[in-house]
Amino acid sequence: MGKKVLMKGNEAVAEAAILAGCRHYFAYPITPQSELIEYMAKKMPLVDGTFLQAESEVAAINMVLGAAACGVRVMTSSSSPGISLKQEGISYIAASRLPAVIVNVTRGGPGLGNIAPMQCDYFQATRGGGHGDYYTPVLSPSTVQEFADMAPLAFEIAEKYLTPVMILGDGMLGQMMEPVEFPDAYPPQKDPSEWALGARRTPDDRHIINSLYIDPYVLQEKTETLFKVYEEIKKNEIRYETYNMDSDAKYLIVAHGTAARVAKSAVDALKEEGVELALIRPITLWPYPYDAVAEAAKGKEKVITIELSMGQMVEDVKLAVCGECPVEFIGKAGGVVFTPEEIVSLIREKIS
Amino acid sequence: MGKKVLMKGNEAVAEAAILAGCRHYFAYPITPQSELIEYMAKKMPLVDGTFLQAESEVAAINMVLGAAACGVRVMTSSSSPGISLKQEGISYIAASRLPAVIVNVTRGGPGLGNIAPMQCDYFQATRGGGHGDYYTPVLSPSTVQEFADMAPLAFEIAEKYLTPVMILGDGMLGQMMEPVEFPDAYPPQKDPSEWALGARRTPDDRHIINSLYIDPYVLQEKTETLFKVYEEIKKNEIRYETYNMDSDAKYLIVAHGTAARVAKSAVDALKEEGVELALIRPITLWPYPYDAVAEAAKGKEKVITIELSMGQMVEDVKLAVCGECPVEFIGKAGGVVFTPEEIVSLIREKIS
Amino acid sequence: MGKKVLMKGNEAVAEAAILAGCRHYFAYPITPQSELIEYMAKKMPLVDGTFLQAESEVAAINMVLGAAACGVRVMTSSSSPGISLKQEGISYIAASRLPAVIVNVTRGGPGLGNIAPMQCDYFQATRGGGHGDYYTPVLSPSTVQEFADMAPLAFEIAEKYLTPVMILGDGMLGQMMEPVEFPDAYPPQKDPSEWALGARRTPDDRHIINSLYIDPYVLQEKTETLFKVYEEIKKNEIRYETYNMDSDAKYLIVAHGTAARVAKSAVDALKEEGVELALIRPITLWPYPYDAVAEAAKGKEKVITIELSMGQMVEDVKLAVCGECPVEFIGKAGGVVFTPEEIVSLIREKIS
Amino acid sequence: MGKKVLMKGNEAVAEAAILAGCRHYFAYPITPQSELIEYMAKKMPLVDGTFLQAESEVAAINMVLGAAACGVRVMTSSSSPGISLKQEGISYIAASRLPAVIVNVTRGGPGLGNIAPMQCDYFQATRGGGHGDYYTPVLSPSTVQEFADMAPLAFEIAEKYLTPVMILGDGMLGQMMEPVEFPDAYPPQKDPSEWALGARRTPDDRHIINSLYIDPYVLQEKTETLFKVYEEIKKNEIRYETYNMDSDAKYLIVAHGTAARVAKSAVDALKEEGVELALIRPITLWPYPYDAVAEAAKGKEKVITIELSMGQMVEDVKLAVCGECPVEFIGKAGGVVFTPEEIVSLIREKIS
Repeated sequence: MGKKVLMKGNEAVAEAAILAGCRHYFAYPITPQSELIEYMAKKMPLVDGTFLQAESEVAAINMVLGAAACGVRVMTSSSSPGISLKQEGISYIAASRLPAVIVNVTRGGPGLGNIAPMQCDYFQATRGGGHGDYYTPVLSPSTVQEFADMAPLAFEIAEKYLTPVMILGDGMLGQMMEPVEFPDAYPPQKDPSEWALGARRTPDDRHIINSLYIDPYVLQEKTETLFKVYEEIKKNEIRYETYNMDSDAKYLIVAHGTAARVAKSAVDALKEEGVELALIRPITLWPYPYDAVAEAAKGKEKVITIELSMGQMVEDVKLAVCGECPVEFIGKAGGVVFTPEEIVSLIREKIS
Repeated sequence: MGKKVLMKGNEAVAEAAILAGCRHYFAYPITPQSELIEYMAKKMPLVDGTFLQAESEVAAINMVLGAAACGVRVMTSSSSPGISLKQEGISYIAASRLPAVIVNVTRGGPGLGNIAPMQCDYFQATRGGGHGDYYTPVLSPSTVQEFADMAPLAFEIAEKYLTPVMILGDGMLGQMMEPVEFPDAYPPQKDPSEWALGARRTPDDRHIINSLYIDPYVLQEKTETLFKVYEEIKKNEIRYETYNMDSDAKYLIVAHGTAARVAKSAVDALKEEGVELALIRPITLWPYPYDAVAEAAKGKEKVITIELSMGQMVEDVKLAVCGECPVEFIGKAGGVVFTPEEIVSLIREKIS
Repeated sequence: MGKKVLMKGNEAVAEAAILAGCRHYFAYPITPQSELIEYMAKKMPLVDGTFLQAESEVAAINMVLGAAACGVRVMTSSSSPGISLKQEGISYIAASRLPAVIVNVTRGGPGLGNIAPMQCDYFQATRGGGHGDYYTPVLSPSTVQEFADMAPLAFEIAEKYLTPVMILGDGMLGQMMEPVEFPDAYPPQKDPSEWALGARRTPDDRHIINSLYIDPYVLQEKTETLFKVYEEIKKNEIRYETYNMDSDAKYLIVAHGTAARVAKSAVDALKEEGVELALIRPITLWPYPYDAVAEAAKGKEKVITIELSMGQMVEDVKLAVCGECPVEFIGKAGGVVFTPEEIVSLIREKIS
Repeated sequence: MGKKVLMKGNEAVAEAAILAGCRHYFAYPITPQSELIEYMAKKMPLVDGTFLQAESEVAAINMVLGAAACGVRVMTSSSSPGISLKQEGISYIAASRLPAVIVNVTRGGPGLGNIAPMQCDYFQATRGGGHGDYYTPVLSPSTVQEFADMAPLAFEIAEKYLTPVMILGDGMLGQMMEPVEFPDAYPPQKDPSEWALGARRTPDDRHIINSLYIDPYVLQEKTETLFKVYEEIKKNEIRYETYNMDSDAKYLIVAHGTAARVAKSAVDALKEEGVELALIRPITLWPYPYDAVAEAAKGKEKVITIELSMGQMVEDVKLAVCGECPVEFIGKAGGVVFTPEEIVSLIREKIS
């Protein structure tokens, strides 16, 4: 069995990335993900890895592109404003068909906002904050253990489909301490010869990595190939968790990440009062579990989406439910987190 | 009456901005919006305006923030990758409640893509490519005249609601020449004392412009105020055009910008064959004319969305139609533009 | 007559530059020249001038090159470390044969040093801190009035010989207040068509400004032309002041700038004790008044160089005196300024 | 014995640095030193070293400062304009008392100049192109073997006196191939605990490396300490070579680097004609072998300085000779190198 330790989410995801073979990490500091970059600064030299604090977020993401093109496991991390600065680079990595992992430990926004936990970068994460026809697989952890487990998973998805993958945490998950267990071994990196530039290989080898295709027909073909890959990802990689689904609940709760933790406690609390609620927690935000949400919503009187934002994922819930029943929204801006009593009371309002 | 001239879209929107009193413009060059920056470089000095080619797109958008904070009409422009680099700044401007105009003459993407016309930045434009809970009003022109007219309109909306406003053109619209008429006068700038920093005013004056609110309850209140403004914008500023709506069409076409030009020609062509199609063209992409699309879709057998992308606005169409009838999609990636025959044939497939 | 006001040296040189027609100023802040940049920030907009705080000193000096190439009077200023960052740009301006004025309000060095007055950038100023075969005329003021008068003079020299010109002040001169008188009018700018890029002129006009000459014979010829200009400058522009030269002094003091003020007071103090000292104050540090110093040194028993440094100008004094008599040095590092008593006592040591 | 190979000077100095234990190298590309950076890019990863192409020369030199502060052997290299950009950083390293090696493979200047060999950065190298009271030991190689040997020597001097050391090559030396022999072992790095920041050492350890000393008396004391070190360097490290000094030559040639190669061939050629010339080649340009040059000049009719520039070292020669006999100059700008016949003929003119 692996080691079990008490760690912050920011540290756990960093440690897991290193255990999974990540030896290249480029970033620029920002709270509330500071423990992640600090952990990398301390640990990377000890494993002969490269830790480089770039001159800016823009530089960091382009270094990620460069390292990915060389065939190594590479990661960057930041928090909301820093992730905005990386959007051009993420679009380039997606178009270049390169594997890389980006961690967003979201802070409150818009603007400088604050360092409280929020889920208001959902749109940016799931609908290409960058330009052009592309998507990024997005993983949303709701415990420190899951945050850690998503590092190797993100590398696997990235390498299987040649795409950047985002882990979308938040400040609460990044800063809270929970026991986390690391396995003795993670699956190794895929042979990078499929995508990496290489000097000592056959003449057929890829020697140019590019995202510029002046001829529209070539770009069209590249884009269609990309979207075929997206179909594969939709077929294989959709993840979600259900809770209290077998009850005869008349209402369905949809929530992800930290909001799902709060929602689960509300499901438990209301169950004790005799009110049954089913809950579905999307783990992949893109691809979104539309079918699972639609299935879970079947026959329900109402679907309630809970987010730590003014309402973003609720659009995906509506697209899934597609008019089958009303979709309502409970949210909070500014990084104010629901107390257990508050969320119970807000849900009770919606269902009475 | 005003002057009427033959101009490229890129030049027309620049000229209209200057006529509307814009005297500050900061940008970094990129095709296919080069004529816009070049026009500004030539004309701004002649009207005692400030043209500044910034050291990067990131710098340019922050200069826009600074100039907006000083109370002047200010604009920037770029094309897709450059707009990605501006996402952090746009979020800051939105959070700081400052008026500014951003023109995106979209190119093909993702990545470096190409300089052909595409509509694949729709998600980025309408769902906050930047981080945090905010929206940006987005105007989508489909003629050079409309492109020009949107410059003063964008300033008016920006100043009325204290928000950045985006004009989302594309490379075709930017580069094509059409006759354009400029009015003798545009409405003047709103008194900037409501939002601008000022040295010579009353003690109550705003002397700090900020987007950092460490206290979650303060950020929550600021965000709720912002979303009240968004409700006002939704009430007052939704714009769209309908075409052949009074016919007994069984099918509804939804398309915006350049795609709507192509779609209209298809409506005309099919009408001659006896096939009636209704068309609705959203002019504001955010706020989206959900009610108008829903209304137009009523009783239709099918709604067909046409985009120069792999499908982005189609999500808004689905949210509007909400299961009332099937929503189908016709699109093209890579900057390949539909020929008139091709679009007619693709529509015919969908409705047969 | 012109206006007479009490001003800091930093402000006086800025005001004089504006009165002399300078309308373009690019810089990055650093003490102890902050009042200069602040003065420009406040005044340039009032005279329709361009004040631009660049993103770095490197950017500022390259903007100076660009503005000079367009034919306008342009200035930058900084203090020691910032001037080091400008060395590449100064070499480019010299090689491009463009007129520009650079003010160095020296601070203590090396490294970050401190903001006390020093003269330890003498070598950098007079022997091309930048790379390559070139010199920069250097003016050393010793009063606030002279600091102000040197702004128009620097522009005149710059335009007459097509060269960057440096005014080498120090923190004491920059920060001290003295009455300064500005004339009603300064000589106007020379017609810039001789050197400036221009769009509306004859086909013979210069349309390329360059410092790259791949062919060694071309670079050789350009350099020889440059050095012919330097011969002209040496012939026409050497400036210095003598003091108590007609006395039968056996000792010669050489000092410039702030050190010369201190030295003069020592000459006066020692005269009262019956000790005669002659003094020569170089005003141009390059070209250096070698002949005048040699002439003044003739028949003296000793030449004493006084500097606020560990000894830099003393090399030029030795080159001038060329073994005729001993050359001694009195100096102080770190920005510690001699008190009147101290300098008198140090001189007395040397001559007894 | 060590290996003997045919190599370019740029490669030889890089290889020797690596053999001497340099494992950190930061630079930005520029001809004619490209082979040096390319060699480092290829070899550093093979020895677990860090090769980092910085975002600019300014960044590179500051990375050198940071690495030096951590106690490792670190090097940067560039060519003239790039070295100008590093002047601020070199002054900081000197003031921070840190060991580092800077290689300047000079190109023709000023400005962009060309990539031909020149010696016109002599002033910059020997008289602190950067600001403030400091010097940098400067080594001038005249063969590829010497270029290579100077890498370990530069590290030794740097570490012995805690100072940056410059190796001043030129494009000819960098690009020409000569046989070079590397010893089996170089002297190891000095224990860095004297100067390096360290986390695991005694409380007395140095934990702050700084060059800011706001109190003038502190900066004065630091500077005086620095100049005591310079006195030590002058006592121990002056290097030069003499040639044909035992003859009864009436003329003394002074030349360094590539110019000394040309000068030696002229000495040989004229010897065959019966004309004796003595030659002294300074190997350290700072500290300059003033005494040796003065001694060599004794009794000579004339001293002739030969440089690939418009005349820079000639000032040091004059300072050394101090009026004992005439000092004349033979030089060439633009990167034009003397042919053997030409230099013989130019010397003959001076001595007839």
